Amino acid sequence: MTMDEELLVHYRLRLQPGERADDKARGIALEQTAELPARCVPETLLATHVGQVRSLEPVSDGTFTASIAYAPELAGGETTQLLNLLFGNISMKAGIRITGIDWPASLLEHFRGPAFGIDGLRQLTGVTEKRPLTCTALKPVGADAGELAALTRAFARGGVDIIKDDHGLADQPSAPYLERLQACQQAVTAANRENGCNSLYFPNATAGPADLADRLAAARDAGCAGVLLSPWLSGMDSLRLARDRYGLAVLAHPAMTGSYFADGHGLDPAVMLGDLFRVAGADAVIYPNAGGRFGFSQATCESINHALRRPLGALRGAMPAPGGGMDVRRAAHWIECYGPDTMVLIGGSLYADGDLTAATRALLTTLGR
Amino acid sequence: MTMDEELLVHYRLRLQPGERADDKARGIALEQTAELPARCVPETLLATHVGQVRSLEPVSDGTFTASIAYAPELAGGETTQLLNLLFGNISMKAGIRITGIDWPASLLEHFRGPAFGIDGLRQLTGVTEKRPLTCTALKPVGADAGELAALTRAFARGGVDIIKDDHGLADQPSAPYLERLQACQQAVTAANRENGCNSLYFPNATAGPADLADRLAAARDAGCAGVLLSPWLSGMDSLRLARDRYGLAVLAHPAMTGSYFADGHGLDPAVMLGDLFRVAGADAVIYPNAGGRFGFSQATCESINHALRRPLGALRGAMPAPGGGMDVRRAAHWIECYGPDTMVLIGGSLYADGDLTAATRALLTTLGR
Repeated sequence: MTMDEELLVHYRLRLQPGERADDKARGIALEQTAELPARCVPETLLATHVGQVRSLEPVSDGTFTASIAYAPELAGGETTQLLNLLFGNISMKAGIRITGIDWPASLLEHFRGPAFGIDGLRQLTGVTEKRPLTCTALKPVGADAGELAALTRAFARGGVDIIKDDHGLADQPSAPYLERLQACQQAVTAANRENGCNSLYFPNATAGPADLADRLAAARDAGCAGVLLSPWLSGMDSLRLARDRYGLAVLAHPAMTGSYFADGHGLDPAVMLGDLFRVAGADAVIYPNAGGRFGFSQATCESINHALRRPLGALRGAMPAPGGGMDVRRAAHWIECYGPDTMVLIGGSLYADGDLTAATRALLTTLGR
Repeated sequence: MTMDEELLVHYRLRLQPGERADDKARGIALEQTAELPARCVPETLLATHVGQVRSLEPVSDGTFTASIAYAPELAGGETTQLLNLLFGNISMKAGIRITGIDWPASLLEHFRGPAFGIDGLRQLTGVTEKRPLTCTALKPVGADAGELAALTRAFARGGVDIIKDDHGLADQPSAPYLERLQACQQAVTAANRENGCNSLYFPNATAGPADLADRLAAARDAGCAGVLLSPWLSGMDSLRLARDRYGLAVLAHPAMTGSYFADGHGLDPAVMLGDLFRVAGADAVIYPNAGGRFGFSQATCESINHALRRPLGALRGAMPAPGGGMDVRRAAHWIECYGPDTMVLIGGSLYADGDLTAATRALLTTLGR
């Protein structure tokens, strides 16, 4: 392997009782590839198909940084195996955290990232001036399709850019997917026509492999420009399917990913929600903003933003969508911190106001429209 | 909601600084359903579509047990939304662990669990006497299809019951899925014919939604009785697809699940690898055995075994498949602990021997065949 053909993964290792740093690093390289002791691996494969420890440095007592290089072909051209290579078996071991990835050109060219990205979402929403995008969520589960359509209309009249299903709206009997899709898409189209606005409705198409394609096709056929997907429920490759087969923009939701963000274990949020979601095809990525109902620090949020927007081969930048309890009154503050290439996701704070249209208009005013 | 219509989820809560137990429990009930403050939820939906805290008991200072009931229809009839309901957003909160689930009959009848289960796997493998099943893995990645077929032949001659792909064998150029599938299935068929044995080959069909159906169809068409799937990579509903559309038995692998098993956070391994994998359709479930390369205790392994085999509506019992560094010399010991309705998964320890056929025969002898 030469350097530009390597997938170089950076880890922080915390030694467990009885562990040695070099054994731990070498153990990861074997566990994630050959899954055999080195003496059982044919000599030729040891050099080509087993991870190579490139560096190992002490940070503090019992803590090390390590970098391991893998042949890109080990990812097999699919994100299922990419994730397995990165963290499949070692998810079951203690004291291993992925802190960064240096992507080889071949994998970036293969996975391709967002089809729309920041610029494409601005074109879809018609927001070409340099203001943040706005997004809100239809809820709660239990409301019927007509009620959700009425909410859609109210938000669209307020001028919000994207109206997404709450990620807990799936195919429940209270508002089955197809019925909700039709009702809400008709509502947003009608409101746009009446008000000269350009809101988009993104239904939650998250589903298993038996149903996913039908839901994506239905969204496209109904005229939706994009969908909401929770990659950790429907599989990371669901993003590619939406992008490649249906031409849909993808807003990705972090449901179920939180367990990887523990201190000293897992994947850095900027690796998971930044690099991986973007590489897999997310045009925008929702994450729990600092100061909301969840525990990310502002520094973590900024590292996700950076991972989504930074130069990365020929990949388009993806738009950060901080949410999870963001207050209308703090929205402008967060945009000052995060910059205008951000999608402000506000749900509860608009619902709390009571008048959704007025609350949405007020939000847009604070954001400079 | 009446009691027999409830999905009752049991949690262990560790209070974080500034948290109150009743707020934390009520917060989970809202977060996982309405995702709105209670005052923003219509009165009628509060009673029907928001989780209801049924109990909250202190365990020790700052630790509580809580039980919350959810309407089964919130799961929307699909495991993607079931997982989201159980742990989607709260995966991003600290100090919440799911310790058990009381399943309503309606969900068990809907999801249906294993099509084969313990008895069905015994029929498929022809092991109707009360001995444990044996399983091994083809590895390492990098070997070509011919080399993997030669390993298959050697293992089959030894009489192992199931020969599965290593879960790191996906569709890499070294041994592309279709080529490997044909070569290994032909090898096992030929060896069975020559030796009068009845080994089965289970290819790793794990893939994203664009490819999964093709891989399952190819496995069925090649004559495989089952497949290996990593539900946390291909999505939990991939098990149902293999079961319902292709009639394949499913051996489920725990890749990527380890991050949910941290102390004080996530899902108990018996809930994830026991209840959830079984309910979703796994006939056998691989987990990292105590004393191997991973960190499960024997008590944890026994709790997974119990969850897989215990009476659960009309669901078939699923077979535990402890692996992850199990030694041939300890196999009989583990079967004494776990009982004969267990599938012993041994890879490295057979490879270390050098003569795969002889090592496999020796394993079977220690297990009483």
